[in-house]
Amino acid sequence: MSEMLSPEELEAALRAIGKARYHNNHPFHGLLHSGRLNKGQVQAWALNRYYYQSIIPMKDAAILARSSDSEFRRAWRQRIIDHDGTEEAPDGGIERWLGLTDALGLDRGYVTSGAGLLPGTRFAVEAYLHFVSEKSLLEAVASSLTEMFAPTIITERVSGMLKSYDFVDAKALSYFDKRLYQAPRDANFALDYVKREARLPYQQQQVLKALEFKCDVLWSQLDALHYAYVEPGNIPPGAFRPDGSAK
Amino acid sequence: MSEMLSPEELEAALRAIGKARYHNNHPFHGLLHSGRLNKGQVQAWALNRYYYQSIIPMKDAAILARSSDSEFRRAWRQRIIDHDGTEEAPDGGIERWLGLTDALGLDRGYVTSGAGLLPGTRFAVEAYLHFVSEKSLLEAVASSLTEMFAPTIITERVSGMLKSYDFVDAKALSYFDKRLYQAPRDANFALDYVKREARLPYQQQQVLKALEFKCDVLWSQLDALHYAYVEPGNIPPGAFRPDGSAK
Repeated sequence: MSEMLSPEELEAALRAIGKARYHNNHPFHGLLHSGRLNKGQVQAWALNRYYYQSIIPMKDAAILARSSDSEFRRAWRQRIIDHDGTEEAPDGGIERWLGLTDALGLDRGYVTSGAGLLPGTRFAVEAYLHFVSEKSLLEAVASSLTEMFAPTIITERVSGMLKSYDFVDAKALSYFDKRLYQAPRDANFALDYVKREARLPYQQQQVLKALEFKCDVLWSQLDALHYAYVEPGNIPPGAFRPDGSAK
Repeated sequence: MSEMLSPEELEAALRAIGKARYHNNHPFHGLLHSGRLNKGQVQAWALNRYYYQSIIPMKDAAILARSSDSEFRRAWRQRIIDHDGTEEAPDGGIERWLGLTDALGLDRGYVTSGAGLLPGTRFAVEAYLHFVSEKSLLEAVASSLTEMFAPTIITERVSGMLKSYDFVDAKALSYFDKRLYQAPRDANFALDYVKREARLPYQQQQVLKALEFKCDVLWSQLDALHYAYVEPGNIPPGAFRPDGSAK
């Protein structure tokens, strides 16, 4: 049996999970940000990560669909707007990510078709979508808490990539500009929610497990990229092959 | 638009997918069967593969639950019996797989808890479970067709492992004895079904895609094992660590 944690202890336990398991600790992150990838490998990262970006509004809509609280829904729906944009300003997160894949020379139709995705990407991303539909609302909200750790990785990513790669510029990375303030705003809301709504020890444990699950979703996407695109000969059948990559 | 294939052409197209994408082509399969893994790596394989085995009856029950045809259900339910066993003979496929993990010195409670699974295993296996629940019954049946290719891999696996590893014997590998006749029986039933029930070109394409999907499910499990357990330093947070493996 677990003991009841104070809200502050719960937050500290969540931060400890992020410190140990957030994907800024993954070796592929180190390669990406320190300029040790070639253009084809960065293309593979952006292509696969697009699929993750593309399901975020579906994930958030699934969460909206499970809340009976108008105030909660009013706050949460902003995430969908941020990713899908508006009629006046359609450059939401998804469009900005496509700006990055454009800048990397990938065809939009190919990117959005998902044809070249790694199966590991697809299965991890879809696991996230199923998780928020099938687990409790509390766990679904908690699984978003990786955003608590996003500002650090974004800062490292943008400065490292701009310094290291002549094939990306600030415009190509403009997705991350907005995330620098959106992610903390969203994370604070979700953190307050789980600290308030996890009223029993087992619920606090569910919250912690949900964050571990989400760290696994992010981590295993980098596992799949690292395996397929760092050493030659490991690209799965059907997946994206950068020009000139080993068959 | 696709053309309608004859049943024989559909079968040939299915066999071509297996030839290109079945996981006997994966480098990890080569390492496993040729004796180039150590005991810890074989433990990791058996532990992760257990999770796949453990959901097979759930997968088949989901398919049963979608068929309104008593004759179909009567045939398909044998798969559940084969995996779960009977009161008189409880050594179905799952129990036999646990015999293998026992022989490899893994604790049953640990194996069945799923605590040490690779996230890549979990997400791939659960993708299979979601696929058979969410896609059409035709696609769900077609996704089982990897069993057409099972006898070859089983024969390679058993003879290679018995020759190469002093820590496994014929009893530990007895799971595979029964699969050598169960898999072809099941595959023939499913193959006849899809050849008969795919009555329109788009349905034939769905059948082919479903087999590709299932090949991806198997392939990406070996990707995850290969990445985590062949080179040092890549085991994800929380996953099984063989004794003495690099931290």
